[in-house]
Amino acid sequence: MSIFTCPLPLPARDRILLGHGSGGKLSAELMRDIFLPALSNPMLDRLDDQAVFAAGGVRLAMTTDSFVVKPLFFRGGDIGSLAVHGTVNDLAMGGATPLYLSAAFILEEGLAMDTLRRVTESLAQAAREAGVRVITGDTKVVEKGSGDGLFINTTGIGLVPERVELSADRAKPGDAVILSGSIGEHGIAILAEREGLEFETPVGSDSAALHTLVAEMLAAARGIRCLRDPTRGGVSSTLNEIARQSKVSIRIEERAITVRPEVQGACELLGLDPLYVANEGKLIAIVDPAQAEAVVSAMRRHPLGEGAGIIGSVGDGPPGLVTIRTALGTVRIVDMLSGDQLPRIC
Amino acid sequence: MSIFTCPLPLPARDRILLGHGSGGKLSAELMRDIFLPALSNPMLDRLDDQAVFAAGGVRLAMTTDSFVVKPLFFRGGDIGSLAVHGTVNDLAMGGATPLYLSAAFILEEGLAMDTLRRVTESLAQAAREAGVRVITGDTKVVEKGSGDGLFINTTGIGLVPERVELSADRAKPGDAVILSGSIGEHGIAILAEREGLEFETPVGSDSAALHTLVAEMLAAARGIRCLRDPTRGGVSSTLNEIARQSKVSIRIEERAITVRPEVQGACELLGLDPLYVANEGKLIAIVDPAQAEAVVSAMRRHPLGEGAGIIGSVGDGPPGLVTIRTALGTVRIVDMLSGDQLPRIC
Repeated sequence: MSIFTCPLPLPARDRILLGHGSGGKLSAELMRDIFLPALSNPMLDRLDDQAVFAAGGVRLAMTTDSFVVKPLFFRGGDIGSLAVHGTVNDLAMGGATPLYLSAAFILEEGLAMDTLRRVTESLAQAAREAGVRVITGDTKVVEKGSGDGLFINTTGIGLVPERVELSADRAKPGDAVILSGSIGEHGIAILAEREGLEFETPVGSDSAALHTLVAEMLAAARGIRCLRDPTRGGVSSTLNEIARQSKVSIRIEERAITVRPEVQGACELLGLDPLYVANEGKLIAIVDPAQAEAVVSAMRRHPLGEGAGIIGSVGDGPPGLVTIRTALGTVRIVDMLSGDQLPRIC
Repeated sequence: MSIFTCPLPLPARDRILLGHGSGGKLSAELMRDIFLPALSNPMLDRLDDQAVFAAGGVRLAMTTDSFVVKPLFFRGGDIGSLAVHGTVNDLAMGGATPLYLSAAFILEEGLAMDTLRRVTESLAQAAREAGVRVITGDTKVVEKGSGDGLFINTTGIGLVPERVELSADRAKPGDAVILSGSIGEHGIAILAEREGLEFETPVGSDSAALHTLVAEMLAAARGIRCLRDPTRGGVSSTLNEIARQSKVSIRIEERAITVRPEVQGACELLGLDPLYVANEGKLIAIVDPAQAEAVVSAMRRHPLGEGAGIIGSVGDGPPGLVTIRTALGTVRIVDMLSGDQLPRIC
């Protein structure tokens, strides 16, 4: 049995496992068993990457993420820039224009001051480039051995235009599935750094702020139902979430998905499936089929969407079922990530 | 020389110390040397406990706090309820009506699932009682030894009424300094739990959501200049921040400050000054002297303000200087907390 189809191990887990932070099955289980029973409300229950609410007649989006990536610095970014990109992207996936961030640091006693300075400067630069301001913050320090260098939480606030209604429960049979570019680069960049792997062509993280790409897409077509950035758990987990929340099936085509040769090579070496590897500068869009080409064209005009293409479609098969037609023409199930393939990837 | 007047140790620190998370001098230094140079903007530079911004014509407040309190459960609360009260209070100190929270958990591998469940249920109950909803969240897991059970970040959003303008830079000579009740209970409750101390009369944390008290105060008088909750670093650090930001002096009267006998006893035993011990359910108000009695009366009608009283006044002495007239009639300087008197108190 592959990891993709094996049932969750029994008996019931009574301890937190690394896999509970993977963005896959165990994360979903934690949500279902612990968080939702206690905290349930209509906004949280949507399980989107951001909550949209009205305050004083204005529609706003709010999203939060803690960053525990290891190592702190990697090819193509660091925990500071990632903490901006990740939260800006979660706002963008709700169609929101990112406005403000909070930044809260948990530092481990003994952290080099210079490391904190470099991370803070990188965070500040990423925020400037994304056009958002860090307006409030917090710092806590824990004893040596009670943390790991530094963790950052960023929470973001954005403005949601009146007509925009994006959610993972809006996919309909017939919709096109669009992916903005090649996959797996962030996860492989982190793993390479962590394991000291060297590739002929080095792999850098794709970490980037996607809100200007999203703005172009929303300007090009009104038929966008849902946007998601396939981070932890990769493309597979994101598609599973959408299929489950929209109660639809999704079929994707392996041929349509770009995996750069160096990423493919690293995945083969490490025994990873690129569909499960994290991205930090890519998005998946579920779009009215009549407008899919217009959306792809708009995306390709943007530097972060040059590799955009339609990778599959939404169907009326078993709700929650995601399948892929391989390059060989066979069809297999694409399940959510199970276990802890890549802990601390973001 | 007492810890209250000794200069910062030299040479320049190149590593993070526990004291950098104390809310005292080292925290201020980190802000001045690392965070502000990189992130400076008019909203952050105010150094209030919350940022107030306008979005689409609506005034909102945003605040963030990470909670790393140790132990997770203590008399009078736990990390879950504290994570709600702390953030609700930071919104309330800006005069905002708290609306929504995000909650982001960093879990250590091996944490008992039951601990997470209890904390989450407590957080949910505190949110219900405070009338706020948790609308978005995040969970990360770090390896055993890279965290310490669980850390929680909560970020809050509130609505700021049009006429409300509260900030630590608005204190004026002549203003009254009001304190809402007895001090030091949260810090002593945590220390007692941590050190296994037993007192004849047990000390419980004062952890509570103060926004309804603030609403009564704002309804009673328009002359409130500034509200602050004296958490990390205690009353002394809060008064120093206000004096510094408003470029005024502040004089308080020891006789006017209530310290419960069991807290006083514990402080003497532990060599602590109650003025430096954290509170989680108290506030300090700087108020137009003509309206101070009205504010105190309004506070005393609220269960969380029963012990309210005027404890001092703002003066035109050296900017940033805080002094106390002791019970014996002598006057001494009340400096910011220096060092790491009580790490991980919230």
